[in-house]
Amino acid sequence: MNPYSKNGTSSFALGTQATFYLLEKMPKQARRIYISPLQTRDDTYQRLREFTKQYKIPVIENNQKIFKELSGKDNTMVIGEFEKFQSDLDPSSNHVVLVNPMNMGNLGTIERCLVGFGIHDLAIITPSADPFDPKVVRASMGALFHLRIRLFSSFEEYQAAAGTHHFYPFMLQAKSFLPQAQITSPWSLIFGNESTGLDPRFLSYGEPLKIPQTPDVDSLNLDNAVAIALYQFTCR
Amino acid sequence: MNPYSKNGTSSFALGTQATFYLLEKMPKQARRIYISPLQTRDDTYQRLREFTKQYKIPVIENNQKIFKELSGKDNTMVIGEFEKFQSDLDPSSNHVVLVNPMNMGNLGTIERCLVGFGIHDLAIITPSADPFDPKVVRASMGALFHLRIRLFSSFEEYQAAAGTHHFYPFMLQAKSFLPQAQITSPWSLIFGNESTGLDPRFLSYGEPLKIPQTPDVDSLNLDNAVAIALYQFTCR
Repeated sequence: MNPYSKNGTSSFALGTQATFYLLEKMPKQARRIYISPLQTRDDTYQRLREFTKQYKIPVIENNQKIFKELSGKDNTMVIGEFEKFQSDLDPSSNHVVLVNPMNMGNLGTIERCLVGFGIHDLAIITPSADPFDPKVVRASMGALFHLRIRLFSSFEEYQAAAGTHHFYPFMLQAKSFLPQAQITSPWSLIFGNESTGLDPRFLSYGEPLKIPQTPDVDSLNLDNAVAIALYQFTCR
Repeated sequence: MNPYSKNGTSSFALGTQATFYLLEKMPKQARRIYISPLQTRDDTYQRLREFTKQYKIPVIENNQKIFKELSGKDNTMVIGEFEKFQSDLDPSSNHVVLVNPMNMGNLGTIERCLVGFGIHDLAIITPSADPFDPKVVRASMGALFHLRIRLFSSFEEYQAAAGTHHFYPFMLQAKSFLPQAQITSPWSLIFGNESTGLDPRFLSYGEPLKIPQTPDVDSLNLDNAVAIALYQFTCR
């Protein structure tokens, strides 16, 4: 039985590094820390104990079952159970908006990429993959805990919350190419679903952009498109 | 039982689109085409039949078992069995070199990305994930069939085959940043293993480059790093 439930209020960060990110960045979200009896590193153990003492977080050291249930054959040694969270996005910061992302691995990789480029606000338009599934948290390598994440039930709902953001929808039908984009802050980079992309109505929002590519592929993978867009918008 | 074997000479392209790429780009590698009894699209069927007639490729229409064995619960309707291949890399074209890539999903996504940016030469330094595993072929969305792929047992072996290429190893320890790279063709973009990156000796090869990133992540995901590098090298 999987101890994680999409409808529950808890999720799990699998692994030592991800658990430390949880404890450093969102200690108040931490509910319980599981340490495997097979965890033998003293420095790791001491550091975990300091955090859990400081924030009064329960530590469970005799539950090997949860390691098997959550991480299968992996050699996970530490698990951080945390309360799921959402935050208001920062209205003056740059945002990434994912419309109906469905692949958990993509979602985690994208979170990691945002943090790598110093972007901390992620809007997800539902329906979508569950951003708190342990698989996503794992794929993000704990980057989730560096983010403000908010789910919106429609793009219009996001739009109302975003305020003065300049919209850059990424679409194969766009006429402007990414390398020539006029960048105005604060911006929102908007990406569609892995299979279908963004609805054509997004062509009338802000400045739609296209990543140059040959006709030999249908499109780039979603996480690659986000990575390239963030590189262009933050590094040039 | 999985009909695919790493040591065998055949592999499988799962799905209609990937099978058409096989038939269009490498028809001589095609050994057999499996069409599921559930495949009901007439245009797809006719097009498959034209190819298989032209190249005298056997068609098997009554083997539902292989669909279950290879693609599980997925709704794959067409499978292209092909003979594994390697090709000499083009000495005058730009290359991507992956040193010990271990993740099959990454490898497929990277192949798709290469083709998206018009790069057709991929060197893989072994040990590595099996580039012909059906999971890789699937993640590549059939981009594999647009590539010249060659496996080398060491970087030195690749170096001897590469000739006059300018080397750009991607390393967190590099001093030069990607946006300021001096690009000289033909180039080889070189990437290390997902966990360990490139060995420090690569700092003395060509012009080592670093993708700007915050200290909040260990590194970017390998496929994202390749995507960003290809964007910089081909689109600017």
